[in-house]
Amino acid sequence: MPVFVYKKTVEFADTDMGGIVHFSCFFRYMEEAEHHFLRSIGLSVMMQLSGKKVGFPRVSAHCDYFKPARFTDELLISVQIEKIGASSITYALEIKRGMDRLAAGKVVTVLCEMQENSPPKSIPIPQDIRNLLENGVV
Amino acid sequence: MPVFVYKKTVEFADTDMGGIVHFSCFFRYMEEAEHHFLRSIGLSVMMQLSGKKVGFPRVSAHCDYFKPARFTDELLISVQIEKIGASSITYALEIKRGMDRLAAGKVVTVLCEMQENSPPKSIPIPQDIRNLLENGVV
Amino acid sequence: MPVFVYKKTVEFADTDMGGIVHFSCFFRYMEEAEHHFLRSIGLSVMMQLSGKKVGFPRVSAHCDYFKPARFTDELLISVQIEKIGASSITYALEIKRGMDRLAAGKVVTVLCEMQENSPPKSIPIPQDIRNLLENGVV
Amino acid sequence: MPVFVYKKTVEFADTDMGGIVHFSCFFRYMEEAEHHFLRSIGLSVMMQLSGKKVGFPRVSAHCDYFKPARFTDELLISVQIEKIGASSITYALEIKRGMDRLAAGKVVTVLCEMQENSPPKSIPIPQDIRNLLENGVV
Repeated sequence: MPVFVYKKTVEFADTDMGGIVHFSCFFRYMEEAEHHFLRSIGLSVMMQLSGKKVGFPRVSAHCDYFKPARFTDELLISVQIEKIGASSITYALEIKRGMDRLAAGKVVTVLCEMQENSPPKSIPIPQDIRNLLENGVV
Repeated sequence: MPVFVYKKTVEFADTDMGGIVHFSCFFRYMEEAEHHFLRSIGLSVMMQLSGKKVGFPRVSAHCDYFKPARFTDELLISVQIEKIGASSITYALEIKRGMDRLAAGKVVTVLCEMQENSPPKSIPIPQDIRNLLENGVV
Repeated sequence: MPVFVYKKTVEFADTDMGGIVHFSCFFRYMEEAEHHFLRSIGLSVMMQLSGKKVGFPRVSAHCDYFKPARFTDELLISVQIEKIGASSITYALEIKRGMDRLAAGKVVTVLCEMQENSPPKSIPIPQDIRNLLENGVV
Repeated sequence: MPVFVYKKTVEFADTDMGGIVHFSCFFRYMEEAEHHFLRSIGLSVMMQLSGKKVGFPRVSAHCDYFKPARFTDELLISVQIEKIGASSITYALEIKRGMDRLAAGKVVTVLCEMQENSPPKSIPIPQDIRNLLENGVV
């Protein structure tokens, strides 16, 4: 499946007193990249589907850190779908600064109906969404 | 090795439009728990060691999400050292609400000298710090 | 009206590369203090009222910064209601570390019905809530 | 003085359970816009000046909220210098979505030497930096 690349500038508020980007921000960056990928094919992390509010909560998130990112760095975050299950999507992500590989992540999300007073409930990924995820077209 | 438990209330700013705690906050919660554990034995994630500024940057962070957390939830975050390497510490963490297990994480940190203009540089964990981590006493 | 005091430890993720707490965190701290004040009298910033979802969005927020806060500082955040209008509450807040006054803030919130697809709509503060805010009892 | 405009997409992590952007994020947005303005004239919020580490800590920050911002909104944040004092810069900021005015802010920053173990110390704004701020050229 194709690779989507999202560009992101490191902002001051993302740094910590160690002088580098706080590790938790890499998860925000990866999610932003995932969202922009979904938008690029007409989807969203929070949308209406057959009149229901659905989203993609995470069931797991992982990041390996190789080198620190710093304020004003221009990052390139690549998003690739590794696997599409019945309800889940597994993403492989990579954060680079130029040719420097700063971090690599893996995130598993599940298509869920978002309910006000009970936990998100997983639902099967409809065929048209599956097609979009696989090919960028229905 | 003993288990350290950190108590944390979910704040409003930690939630997202899905009505639940944003997944990236679990990494902040786990780091807070780790810091409070370190403080409980007289250490810190950012301290002076032989006149040098040292810290514990992460080399990897992982979280499995089982159930969502919500605004005002009282969470219990347990921290346990799984392994102490030459420079690294592997933590196993668990986030619970009462008896409900919401998430489980694993974080690997490395004792590093923090330098202004070059990447953090790993250094061996001194014996007295190793003793503190293992037994809570030097 | 009485002063409510909320205790807060500065966490590592709240700092920036300047080595101090990022200024935007003071707004999160003040909101946390406000929430804990509301909870102390049985209210919340997001609650059900006559079957409707209501909240307290801000119409203005202000902070004057006197001294920086740093990692592991134990802060005391005081909350005092300055004025209760037809729909609005004006809070005066103060952030201290021991006797050191670090910041002073003012926040105006408005009781609103929170609606999915249109802006929050202000509603009058019911008498029983007004009593709670003024005296801590209905 | 000229107006600098910064474009910003609202990300999912910026929203709260009220379904709108958390009010504290507007301060991060305004700071991002200020930083991008400074960069556009060759300055930064954290830089070296005559061999010293200097920054622009805030002495006050204010925001009036008119309408909420939501996930995926494309915001335009305008930055205008209102006043340059001996050491301080007063910015007037505005956050818009198309023609909709969502918020207006005012931020006062002070050029300071950032010191490791003592509070930031204000220093006079050098003439060449003053010229850049006023005209975009030295």
